[in-house]
Amino acid sequence: MSATFDDAYDRTATRSTKWDAYETYLKVPSGPDVLPMWVADMDFPAPDFLTDAVRDLADKGDFGYFAHVDTMCDAIVWWMQTRHNWTVDPAHITPVLSLGNAIAMAIQTWSNPGDAVAIMTPVYHEFASKIARNGRTVTELPLLTDGPRFEMDLAAWETRLTGKERILLLCSPHNPGGRVWSASELDGVAAFCARHDILLVSDEVHHDIVLPGETFTPTAHVLAGHNVRFVAMTSASKTFSIAGSRLGTVIIADQALRNAFRHTVHCSDIAPNLLGTVLTRAAYSPQGAAWVDDMNAYIAGNVAAFKAAIDTIPGAKMSDLEGTYLAWVDFSGTGLNDADLWARVTGEAKIVPSPGLPFGTGGSQGLRFNLGTQRANVLEAGERLKRAFSDLQ
Amino acid sequence: MSATFDDAYDRTATRSTKWDAYETYLKVPSGPDVLPMWVADMDFPAPDFLTDAVRDLADKGDFGYFAHVDTMCDAIVWWMQTRHNWTVDPAHITPVLSLGNAIAMAIQTWSNPGDAVAIMTPVYHEFASKIARNGRTVTELPLLTDGPRFEMDLAAWETRLTGKERILLLCSPHNPGGRVWSASELDGVAAFCARHDILLVSDEVHHDIVLPGETFTPTAHVLAGHNVRFVAMTSASKTFSIAGSRLGTVIIADQALRNAFRHTVHCSDIAPNLLGTVLTRAAYSPQGAAWVDDMNAYIAGNVAAFKAAIDTIPGAKMSDLEGTYLAWVDFSGTGLNDADLWARVTGEAKIVPSPGLPFGTGGSQGLRFNLGTQRANVLEAGERLKRAFSDLQ
Repeated sequence: MSATFDDAYDRTATRSTKWDAYETYLKVPSGPDVLPMWVADMDFPAPDFLTDAVRDLADKGDFGYFAHVDTMCDAIVWWMQTRHNWTVDPAHITPVLSLGNAIAMAIQTWSNPGDAVAIMTPVYHEFASKIARNGRTVTELPLLTDGPRFEMDLAAWETRLTGKERILLLCSPHNPGGRVWSASELDGVAAFCARHDILLVSDEVHHDIVLPGETFTPTAHVLAGHNVRFVAMTSASKTFSIAGSRLGTVIIADQALRNAFRHTVHCSDIAPNLLGTVLTRAAYSPQGAAWVDDMNAYIAGNVAAFKAAIDTIPGAKMSDLEGTYLAWVDFSGTGLNDADLWARVTGEAKIVPSPGLPFGTGGSQGLRFNLGTQRANVLEAGERLKRAFSDLQ
Repeated sequence: MSATFDDAYDRTATRSTKWDAYETYLKVPSGPDVLPMWVADMDFPAPDFLTDAVRDLADKGDFGYFAHVDTMCDAIVWWMQTRHNWTVDPAHITPVLSLGNAIAMAIQTWSNPGDAVAIMTPVYHEFASKIARNGRTVTELPLLTDGPRFEMDLAAWETRLTGKERILLLCSPHNPGGRVWSASELDGVAAFCARHDILLVSDEVHHDIVLPGETFTPTAHVLAGHNVRFVAMTSASKTFSIAGSRLGTVIIADQALRNAFRHTVHCSDIAPNLLGTVLTRAAYSPQGAAWVDDMNAYIAGNVAAFKAAIDTIPGAKMSDLEGTYLAWVDFSGTGLNDADLWARVTGEAKIVPSPGLPFGTGGSQGLRFNLGTQRANVLEAGERLKRAFSDLQ
């Protein structure tokens, strides 16, 4: 395991959104003692194989129009085969601006204003806001959140559909809550979409961040036997914490679906940028693979440390994390409402998590904590939370 | 004048679109003796103040979500004030992915399928294709191209409108042909748009590339007295040849127009990337200003050298270039049709210009030559063209 994950790294100096803009976005007064654990990127400095790639870009000195997206696609193909046993045809890849852009383009391609998009709540809050912003409605498919981990509830979801759903937007692994969906669960989702003739769009951006002992199943692996239309979305952005480079990829095997998506992308003139292309290519490499293994082992230690602290707080329950570095803590047992919970965690503990309400049904009285940071920060957060809730002991 | 503009720089090594992909896009067989003069970027290596900014990005090692678009906007404001005497409120700036993306978002914001967008032809071929791709129709406003330079024809244009035009997409300075429109001409365009209640969208991406003795007038300067809705679009991409970093900016003073545009941008989840932000900030600096002055003087030398060669070819006429590095040569006097002209220039002279036909009415029998390259290449191109057309002597 690399020592660099423990090394202090001051991201206030880089004006990261997480460390520099929580007051702007979440109205928590900024201060040197505030510990931000919201935006989903990691606080580790970029590894050498990434910074070297950027230095090479500077050395070459050509920032003009470039024609080497193909080598990035080759790296993506190599990565999916090597890491996920998923055989991808490079011709099936469409680079876009980000996962968020990919989702927006999918909504615009395969639904019309007034149609509905189904999402499994609580889920990444931008799903619902992107759907609503584009004039579509959200159909919530609530996950079962009472147990130690989030579970699908396919039987109940049958009754939630309105008939207007054109897309089911899957989050796999799931954010928040960190479920790494099993092949069996994904098979159930594919059957559900096939049964209702709903396009299955899978946001798999967290697929590399899987804790030791867990295995990610690409949704593409469960499609055989189902007559289901399918679109996969991914990026190196979460795995390597390079979201600022803004490069997402959409993988579509079906030619008609792919053409439709590319038409939307072309209409808006979306094209990959140089930094995203260079970083993605450098990341999807043997060096990148070794770094991710180390990183996942380190995150597992963070998860254990944070869970140990949360377990001592009466009424707080952290979901079992199988993947992602995003811990979901259900505080409903404390009896605190959302406003009081937020005030206590941001005001007393001086921690800035992501508020649970925007994640949809099941999100109330929950908070999402980003554990992609130095162990010292995780331990400090645990101690602060224990103190902030000590009156409940 | 910097000696670096003359230095040889092998862009085949960087897999630039211009040098590496002309066979893909234009079906001209590639070879070491082919001289590409099509895609609108320049063949000069990036100056130190840009490569240093990229090395600093590598040194900082943070490629995550960033919150420093504000400093880029401050640099844009400084540049517009210093270089163009244009006072821009930073709150009026919306960063997008590129000029192409900006135009697409504008078409989507302010017109509906079936509406028309007016353009002054011959003009940058992507204008018409973006309009058509989005299901809008093109209304051509032909420029007068018989004289030494392109001229507007406002009286004739009155009769070209169909009533379906929602947007006039101005190219200022004009690509191709290199007109730096005068304040008086721009005033005529603003009056035209006001009279017909057409939104005026001005693509000013070439505004810094103005030959010594010429002065660019921002369209924003001629709006007083006209009741015209106006949107300006710009980027550092052409000026500094950093199009691969993909960063455009849209400047809209009117709040309702700005909100409408930002809604479209938000719906598609368009956001600036790190490289574009860093390079734009580094470019819009005193060092950048000095470099542009040197570059413009060098381009003026290229223009004179190329024109001297073209002037010796009977039936070929190069428009007087006031701005941009994109020379327009009208070969109609040779009597060659487009196919024969293309075969002669790409096959015999082994030069790859941009074909004229896609630029719309007035484009036939014309070719656009990119002079943003080493003087040696311009002189070589001139010699090759003279030889290729020597039978016409």
